[in-house]
Amino acid sequence: MTENINSVIDNIAVTSRVRLARNINGYVFPVKKGAKRLEEIIKPVNNELSKIGKFKLYLMSGNQTEALALKEKHLISADLIKSAAGAAVISEDESVSVMINEEDHIRQQCVLKGYNLEKAYKTLNKIDDLLSKKMSFAFDDKLGYLTSCPTNLGTGMRASVMLFLPAVTLNKSINAIINAVNKIGITVRGVYGEGSNAEGYMYQVSNQVSLGLTEYDIIKNVETTVFQICEAEQSARKKMLESNALEIKDIVFRAYGILTNCVKISSAEFMKLISNIKLGAALSIIKVSNVYKISELIVKVQPANITLAAGRALSAEERDIYRADCAAKLLDEIVDKNSLK
Amino acid sequence: MTENINSVIDNIAVTSRVRLARNINGYVFPVKKGAKRLEEIIKPVNNELSKIGKFKLYLMSGNQTEALALKEKHLISADLIKSAAGAAVISEDESVSVMINEEDHIRQQCVLKGYNLEKAYKTLNKIDDLLSKKMSFAFDDKLGYLTSCPTNLGTGMRASVMLFLPAVTLNKSINAIINAVNKIGITVRGVYGEGSNAEGYMYQVSNQVSLGLTEYDIIKNVETTVFQICEAEQSARKKMLESNALEIKDIVFRAYGILTNCVKISSAEFMKLISNIKLGAALSIIKVSNVYKISELIVKVQPANITLAAGRALSAEERDIYRADCAAKLLDEIVDKNSLK
Repeated sequence: MTENINSVIDNIAVTSRVRLARNINGYVFPVKKGAKRLEEIIKPVNNELSKIGKFKLYLMSGNQTEALALKEKHLISADLIKSAAGAAVISEDESVSVMINEEDHIRQQCVLKGYNLEKAYKTLNKIDDLLSKKMSFAFDDKLGYLTSCPTNLGTGMRASVMLFLPAVTLNKSINAIINAVNKIGITVRGVYGEGSNAEGYMYQVSNQVSLGLTEYDIIKNVETTVFQICEAEQSARKKMLESNALEIKDIVFRAYGILTNCVKISSAEFMKLISNIKLGAALSIIKVSNVYKISELIVKVQPANITLAAGRALSAEERDIYRADCAAKLLDEIVDKNSLK
Repeated sequence: MTENINSVIDNIAVTSRVRLARNINGYVFPVKKGAKRLEEIIKPVNNELSKIGKFKLYLMSGNQTEALALKEKHLISADLIKSAAGAAVISEDESVSVMINEEDHIRQQCVLKGYNLEKAYKTLNKIDDLLSKKMSFAFDDKLGYLTSCPTNLGTGMRASVMLFLPAVTLNKSINAIINAVNKIGITVRGVYGEGSNAEGYMYQVSNQVSLGLTEYDIIKNVETTVFQICEAEQSARKKMLESNALEIKDIVFRAYGILTNCVKISSAEFMKLISNIKLGAALSIIKVSNVYKISELIVKVQPANITLAAGRALSAEERDIYRADCAAKLLDEIVDKNSLK
């Protein structure tokens, strides 16, 4: 199956993410009011991870801008920042992030580029083995791993793949796809929030339940759905190019023209235009040497990451100028000018 | 006065135009139903002009696309095309155009670049002398030259200057200017028609009456008004740059980005964006080697001129593609890339 998928997921699957939720015997769930001694969990997790690679510890009680920047990178959640004893241990390459005292005591996640759920799971599995030797995970023979929210019971696992789906968004078949996969235990949701899907064309496909299935069952279920959605997207892209090539070329080239020339740009307009650049790259309308740099750019121009880079809080207009500047420089670097016109 | 004007009209006065209306004794006005023998007027006019330079005769009964293309160049009027015995004799450099059998039997006009009313009038005066020796112009000792419409009685002259007024348009002071000059016998009107002024920023300043004044009085009156409007525009441009430089730079650079990258563009969007390029050139935000080429481009991408260039009628989409292509090529040629960012 994986081989077939690899043939169609090019330019569609952006990242693959696996998350394992764990809790520790003897400690109440972090979300419970008055939970005590939670900070005791931080040190052993950090110690164990430090043995297997370069990891950095972030305390949520520390630099708030740094915490928000991690959230913008999807390395931690908004809930973790609010948590009293929240911390995160993050690998140097940012592929592995372990949140401590979010909804559960420990949430390990691994994010890899492209379609790579199995490798992400195997990476986490090693970390999970390591931690389980040092701490007593709450586990029930019938229910499996115990979690704060019942939807995470069992494996405690969420496997998700981020897909770039401009064609099924634009031809509006995405809604039928979402409804169909919901019935087989898979969730598809727009990543840039309700109503703004059309701008980002980004969707996350993940398993709804983690109970009564093995980790490999979950991966296989998500994989099958991802495979089907990718086929639908590929087919829609082909039709789009056959019937609307000129229209799309115009949209893509205009986005390039504005992004490489504007003096300032709002976050919303930037997202809309950079998504059109990604659309152009996906449809081979323009040649982009490294599409992952676009994902990095999208993170780089978020408010907290801008503040960190500038070393101070910028005004909204200063951020718009910085955003325009970053976009122009990156596109100048990664877009092959010969592919324009 | 002219010296003072020259110091402020740079980048404001686009063209200067003088028109003389004449009619010939023994022929009824062309607009009168059943007017006969009008075609007899064409040949002598053409013969006389051919003696002083390279002129070409266009019969309105001939190629309709060619006639429409001349109208798009403002060399003839829409009314001339509809006229039964309409013709035009136009100089090779297109600075002199003599319409025959429009509203009057003969309408001589001379259009020169920049502020140059006096030279335009002198050029026409020679032609007028030439023609008056071969034909008997209708002239009344008290009323002066007799014309089809009473507003043209007297000198039969209309002196007008085309001004590019983005700053007084954008700060909305243009309406007060129009009202003020109306009271002193001068008309200011937007060139791209009602309601669309804001797109083109182009206005024509001309005398309302031609009776009871000498030709030089008329020129002086128009000149005084042009001078005042240019001062208002210069002052508004300065204030605009002081308070809104970044905003304007953004608008101008975006226009450049879209025009040099889009695959197709409608006539309305093209006018809006090319006007912003002109605004940028006028404010020295971008360096343009030859702004007159922009005026030529605006004519070149009008429907009839496109049809003539292509040798066949193009579809609306084909015209939009051709327009985008012409704009990109010209801007690539005349805009100094170092002045961008």
